[in-house]
Amino acid sequence: MGAPQIPKRQMAMVVEKTGQPVVFKEIDVQEPGPDEVLINIKYSGVCHTDLHAVNGDWPLDTKLPLVGGHEGAGVVVARGSNVTDVEIGDHAGVKWINGTCLACDFCQQSDEPLCSKALLSGYTVDGTFQQYCIAKAAHIARLHKDIALDAVAPVLCAGITVYKALKESGARPGQTVAIVGAGGGLGSLAQQYAKAMGLRTIAIDTGDDKKKMCTEQLGSYAFIDFAKSQNLVKDVQAATEDGLGPHAVVLVAVNEKPFQQAAEYVRPRGTVVCVGLPAGAYLRAPVFETVIKMVTIKGSYVGNRKDSAEALEFFRRGVIKAPFQVVGLSELQMIYDKMQQGAIAGRYVVDTSK
Amino acid sequence: MGAPQIPKRQMAMVVEKTGQPVVFKEIDVQEPGPDEVLINIKYSGVCHTDLHAVNGDWPLDTKLPLVGGHEGAGVVVARGSNVTDVEIGDHAGVKWINGTCLACDFCQQSDEPLCSKALLSGYTVDGTFQQYCIAKAAHIARLHKDIALDAVAPVLCAGITVYKALKESGARPGQTVAIVGAGGGLGSLAQQYAKAMGLRTIAIDTGDDKKKMCTEQLGSYAFIDFAKSQNLVKDVQAATEDGLGPHAVVLVAVNEKPFQQAAEYVRPRGTVVCVGLPAGAYLRAPVFETVIKMVTIKGSYVGNRKDSAEALEFFRRGVIKAPFQVVGLSELQMIYDKMQQGAIAGRYVVDTSK
Amino acid sequence: MGAPQIPKRQMAMVVEKTGQPVVFKEIDVQEPGPDEVLINIKYSGVCHTDLHAVNGDWPLDTKLPLVGGHEGAGVVVARGSNVTDVEIGDHAGVKWINGTCLACDFCQQSDEPLCSKALLSGYTVDGTFQQYCIAKAAHIARLHKDIALDAVAPVLCAGITVYKALKESGARPGQTVAIVGAGGGLGSLAQQYAKAMGLRTIAIDTGDDKKKMCTEQLGSYAFIDFAKSQNLVKDVQAATEDGLGPHAVVLVAVNEKPFQQAAEYVRPRGTVVCVGLPAGAYLRAPVFETVIKMVTIKGSYVGNRKDSAEALEFFRRGVIKAPFQVVGLSELQMIYDKMQQGAIAGRYVVDTSK
Amino acid sequence: MGAPQIPKRQMAMVVEKTGQPVVFKEIDVQEPGPDEVLINIKYSGVCHTDLHAVNGDWPLDTKLPLVGGHEGAGVVVARGSNVTDVEIGDHAGVKWINGTCLACDFCQQSDEPLCSKALLSGYTVDGTFQQYCIAKAAHIARLHKDIALDAVAPVLCAGITVYKALKESGARPGQTVAIVGAGGGLGSLAQQYAKAMGLRTIAIDTGDDKKKMCTEQLGSYAFIDFAKSQNLVKDVQAATEDGLGPHAVVLVAVNEKPFQQAAEYVRPRGTVVCVGLPAGAYLRAPVFETVIKMVTIKGSYVGNRKDSAEALEFFRRGVIKAPFQVVGLSELQMIYDKMQQGAIAGRYVVDTSK
Repeated sequence: MGAPQIPKRQMAMVVEKTGQPVVFKEIDVQEPGPDEVLINIKYSGVCHTDLHAVNGDWPLDTKLPLVGGHEGAGVVVARGSNVTDVEIGDHAGVKWINGTCLACDFCQQSDEPLCSKALLSGYTVDGTFQQYCIAKAAHIARLHKDIALDAVAPVLCAGITVYKALKESGARPGQTVAIVGAGGGLGSLAQQYAKAMGLRTIAIDTGDDKKKMCTEQLGSYAFIDFAKSQNLVKDVQAATEDGLGPHAVVLVAVNEKPFQQAAEYVRPRGTVVCVGLPAGAYLRAPVFETVIKMVTIKGSYVGNRKDSAEALEFFRRGVIKAPFQVVGLSELQMIYDKMQQGAIAGRYVVDTSK
Repeated sequence: MGAPQIPKRQMAMVVEKTGQPVVFKEIDVQEPGPDEVLINIKYSGVCHTDLHAVNGDWPLDTKLPLVGGHEGAGVVVARGSNVTDVEIGDHAGVKWINGTCLACDFCQQSDEPLCSKALLSGYTVDGTFQQYCIAKAAHIARLHKDIALDAVAPVLCAGITVYKALKESGARPGQTVAIVGAGGGLGSLAQQYAKAMGLRTIAIDTGDDKKKMCTEQLGSYAFIDFAKSQNLVKDVQAATEDGLGPHAVVLVAVNEKPFQQAAEYVRPRGTVVCVGLPAGAYLRAPVFETVIKMVTIKGSYVGNRKDSAEALEFFRRGVIKAPFQVVGLSELQMIYDKMQQGAIAGRYVVDTSK
Repeated sequence: MGAPQIPKRQMAMVVEKTGQPVVFKEIDVQEPGPDEVLINIKYSGVCHTDLHAVNGDWPLDTKLPLVGGHEGAGVVVARGSNVTDVEIGDHAGVKWINGTCLACDFCQQSDEPLCSKALLSGYTVDGTFQQYCIAKAAHIARLHKDIALDAVAPVLCAGITVYKALKESGARPGQTVAIVGAGGGLGSLAQQYAKAMGLRTIAIDTGDDKKKMCTEQLGSYAFIDFAKSQNLVKDVQAATEDGLGPHAVVLVAVNEKPFQQAAEYVRPRGTVVCVGLPAGAYLRAPVFETVIKMVTIKGSYVGNRKDSAEALEFFRRGVIKAPFQVVGLSELQMIYDKMQQGAIAGRYVVDTSK
Repeated sequence: MGAPQIPKRQMAMVVEKTGQPVVFKEIDVQEPGPDEVLINIKYSGVCHTDLHAVNGDWPLDTKLPLVGGHEGAGVVVARGSNVTDVEIGDHAGVKWINGTCLACDFCQQSDEPLCSKALLSGYTVDGTFQQYCIAKAAHIARLHKDIALDAVAPVLCAGITVYKALKESGARPGQTVAIVGAGGGLGSLAQQYAKAMGLRTIAIDTGDDKKKMCTEQLGSYAFIDFAKSQNLVKDVQAATEDGLGPHAVVLVAVNEKPFQQAAEYVRPRGTVVCVGLPAGAYLRAPVFETVIKMVTIKGSYVGNRKDSAEALEFFRRGVIKAPFQVVGLSELQMIYDKMQQGAIAGRYVVDTSK
């Protein structure tokens, strides 16, 4: 294969100032360092985290100006001098974790996302809302060539994240997991992964469209509409075989209330896994019930490299069919606007060529 | 051995009405049912839970009138017709869990304390602040005869409970656990058990007496005085080798604040275990930090039968030397008064013959 | 419901002397003890273990004369005086573990099958090859009334056993398990359970009929014919995505050779689970490769009560469709004869009314 | 600090041909590659593996000519261009695993020792029986400067290996582990680590000197002399509290028989961990007993980076006091001769300056 032509300039969506609309403009293409690769991003998913980066409402500063995006899929077009196990032409994904030290206490125990030196795509380093993106070779997701680059984009963050959360939940095949925020991008994938993992799901969200999607397409055996329920705790528990509640709850909602309710309906010895990151939200649970029911509440961040490879392998086998729609990269602000209104079912993917 | 003489009447400390002082009076001795034993209690530890039962400040009603107490050690003097593996004359302990169904989903998975039919000594059934106490044979603690019945009393609840919490923490030998409320009855035992389990402890409490006890007698390598500390979070983290915080925190404190602080200083991927039950207290933690640090917060209730046997075996081997002092059963109210003032270091044990 | 009519006499298949054909004859119906139930067995599966009991080729003596069988499904017709949570008319299953002490170290940790006082149905106590069978109430399998009593019979031992083995394998959803002896009764169920648990299976057995059954009906993605393979180790490894071998191997074969081969093709860090019990067989593995590949070899016996309930719940949900055929109880010897020849695909179930 | 003077030539012990005595000679000092460091080895432990490398009796070829040794402690004197987190003058250890890819499936799950590209010190790359040794920076053991470089040498392989084996055993604090080969280098350390981890040990070996060392210095509560025992299985089981056998067995013996005996005396549900690598040895266990006792037999190789850091931290805290004696590097062949005769108690360390 001849070496690919790499342009000097490219189009990107840039956050120039926190809290302002993103700007579609031409910027330089970067060169990879010795342990990095340059990837020609074809498609990138859009995640709620990207909106937090634009809004600057998380307690962690972004780089500025910033190219957001951390669900990018494309083709390797250049590699640094030390990279030997990635070939030009390989398909690869860029994830939230762009790179880590691989040597600290957390990296040593496969918790790369906890590395204090972690580089975050589209947050502390430029991400995938551009045509050519840099990533540490050891951290890119390896993509089989039979994987569609548009469909896989949302898997690269949303998919991996919910898969990780389901693993962290400790729920075993045959057990029941409630997915809170089931109708959104993360929730849609969570139900698919849960099913592939032999878990049974109760979808919690609101609206008849979401109900239909969750129970008819995404495999949940029950749907609880939190806006219609008179007593959410009772309704969720009643949806389980013995009325004692689900073995785990995965919170992918983006508002605070569900985070303070899940500990009440989860089964004794059950686990509440927090994934969503509503700005300024707090967990809150009564000490007494938490202790005598032996409830666990835990945070689950993004997957490590192994979780990522596993989540992608489920996708490759065709058991994850995430709903998504493609628009041009130049329309990114429109997606943020919809997201701000909570009006998205499924996931948007941007095509960097448009 | 001749059959022991069992009197018809006995002395007991009785809660006649919630919120009032306990009354020292004569009551009937009960007869064991078919699957029960009658135990001549010699000594009983006094636990904070007993005070909650007297005060009625937990969201779970007690039986009334009530004989409290659930850390009783004594001698088996009678057994029901179905009991074949306990002998008259055996030494035995009565624990918080007086009996469970042994057949439900939780009992099947060795989580007997979560059984919805669990009988609670000194709370839903009469307990150990009397001379003769009933317990389900399958649930009594078996005590080797070389175990001193006074010294073991506090182990039967406090010891088992903190041992369980340390197991639930997931901390492995060589790792560090912060004990919050280290100077009290539970805290004293927690440090001893932790040491026996190869764990290193940081004691958190206040006062020079407690500091001395924790670091000189109970094996903690550091003591943080929460009343003197300018920044508890920083001080706790600084007390760990790499400054990242302890691998786990065991909360045996009886006020609310520490429950809302531990998640801040625990190590990423660490576990906060709640044990103490301050009336009306809430856990509270920021969602963002909990997620990106992958912190786990969990409740740990009392030990199951297996935990109990293990905790008692550590005690039998002499590696647990819990500080305690003995007074007559008739002085129980004095202990409650001191407890209410937070003025107890170590544990009180009552002698039922006095 | 009126109390059921219980006859004094019944038909049963009796082992009168080890190594001789079983005898179809009339015997007494027993009365349940205080903690027991009497079950009118409708159907019973036939397991290889039953043949070992007849042949007496295991290093554990049977009761004699013996009524074999330990996969019996039927209706509760009487209960002892202490039994309160089982109703006359309930559907129930009798499993290999007829009863245990529920108090020893193993029972305390939910390993009832390891209880040294365990009663074994159809081995140390009379089993299910009769019309009315006794079992300890705490150990019967609770069967929903929408479960077909003939179809569930093989699940009561074979199903539970392979489900347990898959749990013991430690394989996680998405990982690959090789099933050795895939075409037999246990193997058929193992593939079904594995699929329901999100696992991928490689079937190992011989013959085109078994190949067709495994890959077309039972969900295995690959079939290795051990009689045709030139190099079984290479072929099994080549059937995995990265050529490193399956994450686990479940051995349900009834001859010795596969037990000495599995450690060679299992993935490094993988687990070989032994389930089948070929008479006189030995595990054998080179120390060097076992150590440097960090291979685990373990025995998995039958499930505990919790495993049993879980395995039955998968069946109730309709995801396990075990091939079986029904013949009269009186034809039991014919089944043993076929079994001795290794000529059974799927499972036989006997109808106790014939 | 001025840059250290690095000579061009150095003394080393070289295996020129498998099966022949090692040769003490002058060889070149190597230069580190970009991701490597050069370490001035001060002391190196001598391990049974070194003897296998010399004898060539393992089914894995060594490099030839070969500088053996993989328990080297010294001072970093040079580093490659990519190394940023190791300083000249740092103290460091060279372990069996000299380097791995840090990207494969095994490295991703913290099983670096299973990496197919692992470089092995003193086996596939030159090791520590020389004055200046190369190692991958990401894999060196970081040594606090208050650690004595001679005393730590045996910890770098033997210590880490037995610590790993104890972790792999799954034994929990308070449980009992039998150490087979307790009087040798690995066994001595195993007892110390076990004690520090809250485990109780039964030492199995032969001879009164070893008995004395194990029970008086190394903390074992029982010693079984396999040469004097009439029934080793019974004696080991009798040495446990309830007679059911130890919860785990760690096999550090260097002959085959114990590998075939441990599964008989380990407790039901117990784990036999193989560590020692007798040339040509096989594991062997009856299938029947392995299954019905649910015994686990597993291989444990060397520790990963995290295990290594943990094992070294125990040592730094002073709770591991491994017996060793120092001789000059030039006397290495003498040590091999003694080892061949099985005549070593404790561990030899060579001083590279002599």
